[in-house]
Amino acid sequence: MVDKRNLEEKINKVLEKIKIIDIHTHLFPPSFKDLFLYGIDYLLTYHYLIAETVRYLPISPDDFYNLSLKEQAELVWKTLFVDRSPISESARGIVTILTEVGVDFEKKDLSLIRAYFDKIDMESYVDLIFEKAKIDYVVMTNDPLDENEMKYWKCNIFKDKRFRPSLRLDRLINDWENIREYLKVKDYKEIKDHLDKWFLMIEPLYIALSFPPDFRYPDDMLRSRLLEEIMLYAEERKVPIALMIGAKRSVNPSLRLAGDSVGKSNIESIENLCRSFPNNKFMVTMLSRENQHELCVTARKFKNLMIFGCWWFLNTPSLIEEITKMRLELLGFSFIPQHSDARVLEQLIYKWKHSKEIIKKVLYDKYLALIRSGWTLKEEDIERDITQLFRKNFEDFIFSKQ
Amino acid sequence: MVDKRNLEEKINKVLEKIKIIDIHTHLFPPSFKDLFLYGIDYLLTYHYLIAETVRYLPISPDDFYNLSLKEQAELVWKTLFVDRSPISESARGIVTILTEVGVDFEKKDLSLIRAYFDKIDMESYVDLIFEKAKIDYVVMTNDPLDENEMKYWKCNIFKDKRFRPSLRLDRLINDWENIREYLKVKDYKEIKDHLDKWFLMIEPLYIALSFPPDFRYPDDMLRSRLLEEIMLYAEERKVPIALMIGAKRSVNPSLRLAGDSVGKSNIESIENLCRSFPNNKFMVTMLSRENQHELCVTARKFKNLMIFGCWWFLNTPSLIEEITKMRLELLGFSFIPQHSDARVLEQLIYKWKHSKEIIKKVLYDKYLALIRSGWTLKEEDIERDITQLFRKNFEDFIFSKQ
Amino acid sequence: MVDKRNLEEKINKVLEKIKIIDIHTHLFPPSFKDLFLYGIDYLLTYHYLIAETVRYLPISPDDFYNLSLKEQAELVWKTLFVDRSPISESARGIVTILTEVGVDFEKKDLSLIRAYFDKIDMESYVDLIFEKAKIDYVVMTNDPLDENEMKYWKCNIFKDKRFRPSLRLDRLINDWENIREYLKVKDYKEIKDHLDKWFLMIEPLYIALSFPPDFRYPDDMLRSRLLEEIMLYAEERKVPIALMIGAKRSVNPSLRLAGDSVGKSNIESIENLCRSFPNNKFMVTMLSRENQHELCVTARKFKNLMIFGCWWFLNTPSLIEEITKMRLELLGFSFIPQHSDARVLEQLIYKWKHSKEIIKKVLYDKYLALIRSGWTLKEEDIERDITQLFRKNFEDFIFSKQ
Ligand SMILES: [Mg+2]
Ligand SMILES: [Zn+2]
Ligand SMILES: [Zn+2]
Ligand SMILES: [Zn+2]
Repeated sequence: MVDKRNLEEKINKVLEKIKIIDIHTHLFPPSFKDLFLYGIDYLLTYHYLIAETVRYLPISPDDFYNLSLKEQAELVWKTLFVDRSPISESARGIVTILTEVGVDFEKKDLSLIRAYFDKIDMESYVDLIFEKAKIDYVVMTNDPLDENEMKYWKCNIFKDKRFRPSLRLDRLINDWENIREYLKVKDYKEIKDHLDKWFLMIEPLYIALSFPPDFRYPDDMLRSRLLEEIMLYAEERKVPIALMIGAKRSVNPSLRLAGDSVGKSNIESIENLCRSFPNNKFMVTMLSRENQHELCVTARKFKNLMIFGCWWFLNTPSLIEEITKMRLELLGFSFIPQHSDARVLEQLIYKWKHSKEIIKKVLYDKYLALIRSGWTLKEEDIERDITQLFRKNFEDFIFSKQ
Repeated sequence: MVDKRNLEEKINKVLEKIKIIDIHTHLFPPSFKDLFLYGIDYLLTYHYLIAETVRYLPISPDDFYNLSLKEQAELVWKTLFVDRSPISESARGIVTILTEVGVDFEKKDLSLIRAYFDKIDMESYVDLIFEKAKIDYVVMTNDPLDENEMKYWKCNIFKDKRFRPSLRLDRLINDWENIREYLKVKDYKEIKDHLDKWFLMIEPLYIALSFPPDFRYPDDMLRSRLLEEIMLYAEERKVPIALMIGAKRSVNPSLRLAGDSVGKSNIESIENLCRSFPNNKFMVTMLSRENQHELCVTARKFKNLMIFGCWWFLNTPSLIEEITKMRLELLGFSFIPQHSDARVLEQLIYKWKHSKEIIKKVLYDKYLALIRSGWTLKEEDIERDITQLFRKNFEDFIFSKQ
Repeated sequence: MVDKRNLEEKINKVLEKIKIIDIHTHLFPPSFKDLFLYGIDYLLTYHYLIAETVRYLPISPDDFYNLSLKEQAELVWKTLFVDRSPISESARGIVTILTEVGVDFEKKDLSLIRAYFDKIDMESYVDLIFEKAKIDYVVMTNDPLDENEMKYWKCNIFKDKRFRPSLRLDRLINDWENIREYLKVKDYKEIKDHLDKWFLMIEPLYIALSFPPDFRYPDDMLRSRLLEEIMLYAEERKVPIALMIGAKRSVNPSLRLAGDSVGKSNIESIENLCRSFPNNKFMVTMLSRENQHELCVTARKFKNLMIFGCWWFLNTPSLIEEITKMRLELLGFSFIPQHSDARVLEQLIYKWKHSKEIIKKVLYDKYLALIRSGWTLKEEDIERDITQLFRKNFEDFIFSKQ
């Protein structure tokens, strides 16, 4: 039996053991060559860190991006790790990674750190990082309209159970006029054949789309017509649609990938989708803090809505904490607490270590309250509940007929 | 004198002793027969728990509601208490109730729990629950347009000081066309006689209305004309109007009572009401988290505005904590920290026990900060302050001439 | 080296020593005679406390303001300090001040407190308070259209390095029709000469403007044309423009200065300004809690945006805590954590003591997390980082060419 004295230890034990399904990343397997990113230079030039670095320096974003990858990494290292303490969430992330992989960085000498990454054994590296991050498998973001990515799919080399596909259709929706020509279709009613072709090639676990804060459903935009075609297809295939809502693209174009921002979105549109398409399954994450409470409440209303993750600017300790508390209090275990959004392999380590730290604390408080209310808690209960959060909710949702 | 070492004990002592006025519930006294709800089957089929249960099960809301009350209760019990840990706020509430009334539920056998409730002594049961929840009296929600409820008022049996009336006029405002015919009045200017009749029969402590997030004042909707008539009447009678704002009705109609959701409302409308009707007294609670800070600030602006409670989806530990902190910091003791919204008698136990736990913690932090700032605190100060929060603010506001 | 055991002590030491730059106050030096406010009667009649006091009393705001200053102070004292515990943030502020300056107030006898303030040595008083509050210098709010204030500028007596000027242009923008006549200019294109005259006389560190929640940029209001003229001028002079956004003026006019409220503002307008005027430097604070997260994110997008302070209704422990966490997590050290907004000299003591208490706690948590992630922290790192927050970010931004 679990009591106040051993509760923390029991939760730790389960969280150490659990094999996480990371349901949304931008990672690729080593077989995708140039798309497979790892190592200190990619880690330091993560767009999260570039945004922080340029704030401190008398350099324009354009001039920064004109530097070589190595020069960029050096500037980030000096600015955030030498001239200041790496206190932000993304900067501390680098510290966690270096510590966990066992690099000595006390001298703050980037060349010594690089030396470590130069010597890694590529054969076993993905397994090593997955093992350290306790990952079972990650879901990729696969764009059928990216020719660079598609060349790897077309040569059909992909057989790596550690990386599972999702079909990301942002370009289709956001750049329809060009895509239409590229696909040689007359109008949106003809995209089904393409969806089918992509689906069969990629075999995605779900179809994904991101939308800006001005997303509304229903409306009379072409965007909504395309979404409806996709929903129809997803229903047929019985796969969920993942909606990531609230990213405002290119608020500062000169910052490129680091130039997107956030806006509050319209929760009624989610309600409308879930109610009007009861045979579709929706996985939803929203980027605005001010949508989090109402999104939780909406999930209480619709069983075809699975909410997930603390996305991007919400992926910080204080916000993960408030969001996870809210979700457990309002939804019990019926949500997916986190995804990593990792773009560089080793980010899996810090994203999950940091998030699990917070989730552990929140679970501890909630289980303790439950014990104090008179509930008898067993170790296998904790294991069952946490498995539901980190694995079962996703797989059940993916495979459910709804 | 109170110091750091005995502060917690002193606050506990006062909170244990204080007789709470629960200013908004949906409870009725035993004399209202079928409207008087108590016992495990009603507790388990509370709409909060139904919403959580159906998320986990391959059952539609319609099929769920087609089950008998006992079958529904069994499904909730199995889903939230046997197959998972009851971690959500509403699920833990059941655990607290069972523990406090002294039922043994370790075997998780619902029939044993039912056996307890079958044997209770109905004569003294309300007193027992009130005693356990430390309630002085609760305010009911009395609907003069509900014929089922009105039959109890018309036979004039009501003499139960533990249950005080409020006059809830949602139907009048939301279903005016039908109500108008039912009341046989030509237009809204004629409702005064009805208000008067209801007022004299029910003798309410206040008049209550709930509004959706799209509530605006002023506007040219009939809703606002009706509200103005009611305000005029309330001013004459010197009773407050309680406004509960932000519930979006029937977002998922199939979930019935569990299908309502939340939306951010317009704070200017509250400002307009308080400023334009200085001789009216407004008790206001809002459902959106994103209205809580501005509602606090608005209360700083208008002394005819008394804010109250952490309503529904805000009635969870993390949100009660952030809201109560905000209120104490910005308003001192001039607000009503909580109401239970109980629909089933025993819910009084958990709603108040859980809320008082949080409020205690917040008060502790605030008093401690005050002591550290150099203030001399006495036990009778704590008693006076807490009495103001849980009793005096309400009664002063109800009886003030403004 | 700093570790878990001595971390708190090291942060304390730095925070005790640091000489703060208070970047926004409404203070004036003693040479500004009637504008220089200090002492218990002005402290007790701070508009924050008046708003709280009238909530409890059967007195109208008008009747309250018709009392003499001393009578008002007495009523505030009795209501918030004798009849209740001074639990709100502003009420506790008084307790902190009295304790820090060494007045004995245990008897709660206002005349004894007044006696203390009657006997202070005016010669050294400002230095004493600055020393207690650990202030290097404060920035005033200087209004060139306030004739009362301008008489002190015109006689050119101002030589007090403890008080630095800023040029506040609210009246110019909000009351343009009258100001236009007063300045004898035909249209907004002619204000440059006046800006120049004021700038040379006042030598401000920055130009400041406050805007209501309905502020939008771009739009076709005259307000935006005036703002553009001011931005042009500020660019030439290489001074920042401080924007304080979200105060809704005179929601309850009878409360005068205490009658302003808050509203959520439009973050796109900040994005538009920062992007369209890359040669301007913007210091921004917003009043709505619901703008804080998106304002943080916006600062990640624009290096010409320096966010600052927890303004007014956000200046309470729980909100300072959540905002400071968010900023450190998302921005590292690239923001200005607080300003006092003090109107009465001694308020510097409590505003900074309370804020530093919270900021210390947040920094402690963040540094501890960093140490636990494997970072080696030195005492001089803490000193460098905290100096950046409380001094360097402001001065670097003021003097940067951007
Ligand atoms: Mg919080
Ligand atoms: Zn992503
Ligand atoms: Zn209710
Ligand atoms: Zn100010």
